[in-house]
Amino acid sequence: MNYEQVFEQIKAKKSFLCVGLDSDYEKLPKHLLTHESPVFEFNRQIIDATAKYSIAYKPNLAFYESLGLQGWQALEKTVEYIRINYPDIFIIADAKRGDIGNTSKLYAKAFFENMNFDAVTVAPYMGEDSVKPFLSYNSKWVILLALTSNKGADDFQYFKENDTRLFEKVLKKSQDWADKENMMYVVGATRAEMLTDIRKIVPNHFLLVPGVGAQGGSLQEVAKYGMNNNCGLIVNSSRAIIFADNTENFANIAEQKAKEVQIEMEMLLQEKGII
Amino acid sequence: MNYEQVFEQIKAKKSFLCVGLDSDYEKLPKHLLTHESPVFEFNRQIIDATAKYSIAYKPNLAFYESLGLQGWQALEKTVEYIRINYPDIFIIADAKRGDIGNTSKLYAKAFFENMNFDAVTVAPYMGEDSVKPFLSYNSKWVILLALTSNKGADDFQYFKENDTRLFEKVLKKSQDWADKENMMYVVGATRAEMLTDIRKIVPNHFLLVPGVGAQGGSLQEVAKYGMNNNCGLIVNSSRAIIFADNTENFANIAEQKAKEVQIEMEMLLQEKGII
Repeated sequence: MNYEQVFEQIKAKKSFLCVGLDSDYEKLPKHLLTHESPVFEFNRQIIDATAKYSIAYKPNLAFYESLGLQGWQALEKTVEYIRINYPDIFIIADAKRGDIGNTSKLYAKAFFENMNFDAVTVAPYMGEDSVKPFLSYNSKWVILLALTSNKGADDFQYFKENDTRLFEKVLKKSQDWADKENMMYVVGATRAEMLTDIRKIVPNHFLLVPGVGAQGGSLQEVAKYGMNNNCGLIVNSSRAIIFADNTENFANIAEQKAKEVQIEMEMLLQEKGII
Repeated sequence: MNYEQVFEQIKAKKSFLCVGLDSDYEKLPKHLLTHESPVFEFNRQIIDATAKYSIAYKPNLAFYESLGLQGWQALEKTVEYIRINYPDIFIIADAKRGDIGNTSKLYAKAFFENMNFDAVTVAPYMGEDSVKPFLSYNSKWVILLALTSNKGADDFQYFKENDTRLFEKVLKKSQDWADKENMMYVVGATRAEMLTDIRKIVPNHFLLVPGVGAQGGSLQEVAKYGMNNNCGLIVNSSRAIIFADNTENFANIAEQKAKEVQIEMEMLLQEKGII
């Protein structure tokens, strides 16, 4: 999926919501546990309930790997299910991978060829040759960690050489490797005040913004400082939507929560004159 | 496995070799492809041939994930095979994971509980709460990326605040989270000249050193600048051992290559007065 297609979907759905499929087995509604693949069944119902309001899904790999084979199976089935039933949806492997070149190449194969994800999150620490193999696929994306939403972001991401902080160095350096057509950046919603500085370096790129909802980030703030004329934002919410309820009614509640977010996003898109 | 047990094994085997199980399906000897699990069969023969000369094995997760379910199965069987047949061996998941706390916790579960690895490589970019969940297991280890062996290491790892480079900041900061009993660091053999500076910050920690062999690092140099009184080194070789030959004789050749490295290591341990 290319830049224009992502933007078209945002305008069509009046939403820039990504639903994070952090489908923690321990938190699944109990009535699903009798299913052959409880995680897939949970995802399927969440997807059917929220696809109208979302432009992207983002399974976090940890929640699947921690279940071993059964987890991988659920992940593969989930991606396939979205592809078949909602072909316009952007699918992100939140994997935070990154290794030496010949190894990153195989991660790229795993996510882009075997599983047909549109994008994969990549950690920048190992530099160019750890990122490049992911960039050799047409219409596939690297989403590079820049400034993350967690407290530990303070440990290294603000490390400063002259007037440049590490996350800014990552944004600048990576311009040599890719452009807005195949790279996005992770910027945590809990760091919304930094979006002004970030937009100076990457005015046109899409930013994937986690941390709204359970982690406490504000959608208004994110839009205020981060939205550009092509929206330029994909805002993720995981727990606040998918685990808003854990009764047999969970999918309906997830739908309501997604719809609430979509309505807020629609207003923000209107204010900006995008729709 | 604790610090003392790792050191005891080094003295007993007169080796500090880790064999990297980067078992790339495309490079397997052709005669193995008829096996039910060619990757596991390859690993099994490599392990049986080299266990006498090695203190550790390090499967790189990318080579397994890229095969999907079949890859995960081969990985699980490999770890189990080592555990049963060579219980003294240290097993490293070269996964380079790292995510927000509740996610890292699940990666830790995947590698330490489900699969019984001794250690996992972790990327530092997201800071303390991305690393800590891996540290809550007794006698399990985090191996934190400090200075990697690849060219891309130059992009960010030498980024400098005042007189401290990022990799040094990682070494220093992480002292607050763990000590030599549960943390090691990745330092590439191609950066041997930096080991002097690194040893000033972490004189007693074990360092996992990739990059000897196919990537061009020198074992002599690594030992000269990096060895301490408890050896303090686990040197990894992958392709130069496991893919030294791809005929039916591959395991014998791998054994010879591992033995050659072990003999060199024995001399280095003797020179240092460790054995």
